[in-house]
Amino acid sequence: MSPDLIGYGAAFFTTAAFVPQALKSWSTRDLSGVSLSMYSMFTLGVALWLLYGIALQSWPIILANCITLALASLVLGLKISHLRAK
Amino acid sequence: MSPDLIGYGAAFFTTAAFVPQALKSWSTRDLSGVSLSMYSMFTLGVALWLLYGIALQSWPIILANCITLALASLVLGLKISHLRAK
Repeated sequence: MSPDLIGYGAAFFTTAAFVPQALKSWSTRDLSGVSLSMYSMFTLGVALWLLYGIALQSWPIILANCITLALASLVLGLKISHLRAK
Repeated sequence: MSPDLIGYGAAFFTTAAFVPQALKSWSTRDLSGVSLSMYSMFTLGVALWLLYGIALQSWPIILANCITLALASLVLGLKISHLRAK
Protein backbone atom coordinates (compact mmCIF):
# COMPACT_ATOMS: atom_id res chain seq x y z
CA MET A 1 0.00 0.00 0.00
CA SER A 2 1.34 3.46 -0.85
CA PRO A 3 2.27 5.75 2.06
CA ASP A 4 -0.13 8.41 0.75
CA LEU A 5 -3.05 5.97 0.81
CA ILE A 6 -2.22 5.05 4.44
CA GLY A 7 -1.92 8.76 5.25
CA TYR A 8 -5.31 9.60 3.72
CA GLY A 9 -6.88 6.68 5.61
CA ALA A 10 -5.34 7.98 8.84
CA ALA A 11 -6.50 11.51 8.04
CA PHE A 12 -10.03 10.29 7.37
CA PHE A 13 -10.39 8.33 10.62
CA THR A 14 -8.82 10.78 13.09
CA THR A 15 -10.69 13.71 11.49
CA ALA A 16 -14.02 11.86 11.36
CA ALA A 17 -13.61 10.85 15.02
CA PHE A 18 -13.36 14.52 15.92
CA VAL A 19 -16.52 15.68 14.08
CA PRO A 20 -19.11 14.48 16.68
CA GLN A 21 -17.44 16.57 19.43
CA ALA A 22 -17.57 19.70 17.27
CA LEU A 23 -21.18 19.03 16.20
CA LYS A 24 -22.27 18.37 19.78
CA SER A 25 -20.54 21.50 21.10
CA TRP A 26 -22.10 23.56 18.28
CA SER A 27 -25.65 22.24 18.61
CA THR A 28 -25.98 21.94 22.40
CA ARG A 29 -23.67 24.84 23.35
CA ASP A 30 -22.92 22.67 26.37
CA LEU A 31 -19.18 23.11 26.82
CA SER A 32 -19.07 22.03 30.46
CA GLY A 33 -17.39 18.73 29.60
CA VAL A 34 -14.70 20.42 27.54
CA SER A 35 -11.45 21.42 29.25
CA LEU A 36 -10.00 24.82 28.26
CA SER A 37 -6.38 23.85 28.95
CA MET A 38 -6.74 20.55 27.08
CA TYR A 39 -8.32 22.20 24.05
CA SER A 40 -5.79 25.02 24.01
CA MET A 41 -2.93 22.50 23.95
CA PHE A 42 -4.68 20.36 21.35
CA THR A 43 -5.42 23.32 19.04
CA LEU A 44 -1.81 24.55 19.32
CA GLY A 45 -0.56 21.03 18.60
CA VAL A 46 -2.79 20.68 15.52
CA ALA A 47 -1.56 24.07 14.22
CA LEU A 48 2.03 22.82 14.62
CA TRP A 49 1.21 19.53 12.79
CA LEU A 50 -0.18 21.67 9.96
CA LEU A 51 3.13 23.60 9.77
CA TYR A 52 5.02 20.28 9.92
CA GLY A 53 2.87 18.91 7.07
CA ILE A 54 3.61 22.03 4.99
CA ALA A 55 7.35 21.67 5.73
CA LEU A 56 7.21 18.00 4.66
CA GLN A 57 4.84 18.79 1.75
CA SER A 58 2.66 15.95 2.99
CA TRP A 59 -0.91 16.41 1.73
CA PRO A 60 -2.50 13.87 4.14
CA ILE A 61 -1.02 15.80 7.11
CA ILE A 62 -1.98 19.19 5.64
CA LEU A 63 -5.59 18.21 4.85
CA ALA A 64 -6.23 16.35 8.13
CA ASN A 65 -4.85 19.18 10.23
CA CYS A 66 -6.58 21.97 8.26
CA ILE A 67 -9.97 20.37 8.94
CA THR A 68 -9.14 19.42 12.55
CA LEU A 69 -7.75 22.92 13.22
CA ALA A 70 -11.00 24.48 11.99
CA LEU A 71 -13.09 22.12 14.18
CA ALA A 72 -10.85 22.47 17.25
CA SER A 73 -10.82 26.28 16.90
CA LEU A 74 -14.62 26.23 16.75
CA VAL A 75 -14.87 24.18 19.96
CA LEU A 76 -12.22 26.34 21.66
CA GLY A 77 -14.02 29.53 20.59
CA LEU A 78 -17.34 28.19 21.93
CA LYS A 79 -15.62 27.24 25.21
CA ILE A 80 -14.11 30.72 25.62
CA SER A 81 -17.45 32.45 24.88
CA HIS A 82 -19.14 29.99 27.29
CA LEU A 83 -16.65 30.96 30.05
CA ARG A 84 -17.13 34.70 29.33
CA ALA A 85 -20.92 34.38 29.45
CA LYS A 86 -20.76 32.96 32.98
CA MET B 1 12.82 26.52 12.67
CA SER B 2 13.63 22.97 11.54
CA PRO B 3 10.68 20.78 10.48
CA ASP B 4 11.68 18.18 13.11
CA LEU B 5 11.48 20.76 15.90
CA ILE B 6 8.00 21.80 14.73
CA GLY B 7 7.02 18.12 14.53
CA TYR B 8 8.23 17.37 18.06
CA GLY B 9 6.37 20.45 19.34
CA ALA B 10 3.22 19.23 17.59
CA ALA B 11 3.75 15.71 18.97
CA PHE B 12 4.18 17.07 22.50
CA PHE B 13 1.01 19.18 22.48
CA THR B 14 -1.44 16.77 20.82
CA THR B 15 -0.15 13.86 22.93
CA ALA B 16 -0.20 15.86 26.18
CA ALA B 17 -3.77 17.00 25.42
CA PHE B 18 -4.80 13.36 25.27
CA VAL B 19 -3.29 12.28 28.62
CA PRO B 20 -6.04 13.72 30.92
CA GLN B 21 -8.73 11.67 29.13
CA ALA B 22 -6.74 8.47 29.57
CA LEU B 23 -5.94 9.26 33.23
CA LYS B 24 -9.57 10.14 33.98
CA SER B 25 -10.88 6.98 32.30
CA TRP B 26 -8.30 4.88 34.16
CA SER B 27 -8.86 6.37 37.62
CA THR B 28 -12.66 6.84 37.62
CA ARG B 29 -13.53 3.89 35.35
CA ASP B 30 -16.39 6.14 34.28
CA LEU B 31 -16.56 5.54 30.54
CA SER B 32 -20.13 6.77 30.08
CA GLY B 33 -18.99 9.96 28.33
CA VAL B 34 -16.78 8.06 25.89
CA SER B 35 -18.25 6.98 22.56
CA LEU B 36 -17.31 3.48 21.35
CA SER B 37 -17.66 4.30 17.64
CA MET B 38 -15.69 7.54 18.02
CA TYR B 39 -12.85 5.83 19.91
CA SER B 40 -12.75 2.89 17.53
CA MET B 41 -12.33 5.27 14.57
CA PHE B 42 -9.79 7.37 16.43
CA THR B 43 -7.69 4.35 17.49
CA LEU B 44 -7.73 2.97 13.93
CA GLY B 45 -6.73 6.41 12.60
CA VAL B 46 -3.84 6.70 15.05
CA ALA B 47 -2.62 3.21 14.08
CA LEU B 48 -2.64 4.30 10.42
CA TRP B 49 -0.74 7.54 11.26
CA LEU B 50 1.86 5.36 12.96
CA LEU B 51 2.23 3.26 9.78
CA TYR B 52 2.40 6.48 7.74
CA GLY B 53 5.14 7.83 10.04
CA ILE B 54 7.11 4.59 9.64
CA ALA B 55 6.69 4.80 5.82
CA LEU B 56 7.94 8.42 5.89
CA GLN B 57 10.60 7.63 8.54
CA SER B 58 9.32 10.63 10.49
CA TRP B 59 10.24 10.29 14.17
CA PRO B 60 7.84 12.99 15.43
CA ILE B 61 4.91 11.14 13.78
CA ILE B 62 6.14 7.73 15.02
CA LEU B 63 6.67 8.85 18.63
CA ALA B 64 3.44 10.87 18.91
CA ASN B 65 1.32 8.07 17.49
CA CYS B 66 3.02 5.29 19.50
CA ILE B 67 2.12 7.07 22.74
CA THR B 68 -1.35 8.14 21.57
CA LEU B 69 -2.06 4.61 20.27
CA ALA B 70 -1.19 3.16 23.69
CA LEU B 71 -3.42 5.70 25.48
CA ALA B 72 -6.32 5.39 23.01
CA SER B 73 -6.14 1.56 23.17
CA LEU B 74 -6.30 1.79 26.98
CA VAL B 75 -9.42 3.99 26.85
CA LEU B 76 -11.00 1.78 24.18
CA GLY B 77 -10.23 -1.36 26.21
CA LEU B 78 -11.78 0.18 29.33
CA LYS B 79 -14.85 1.20 27.31
CA ILE B 80 -15.30 -2.33 25.93
CA SER B 81 -14.92 -3.94 29.38
CA HIS B 82 -17.35 -1.30 30.75
CA LEU B 83 -19.93 -2.27 28.09
CA ARG B 84 -19.44 -6.00 28.81
CA ALA B 85 -19.87 -5.49 32.56
CA LYS B 86 -23.31 -3.94 32.04
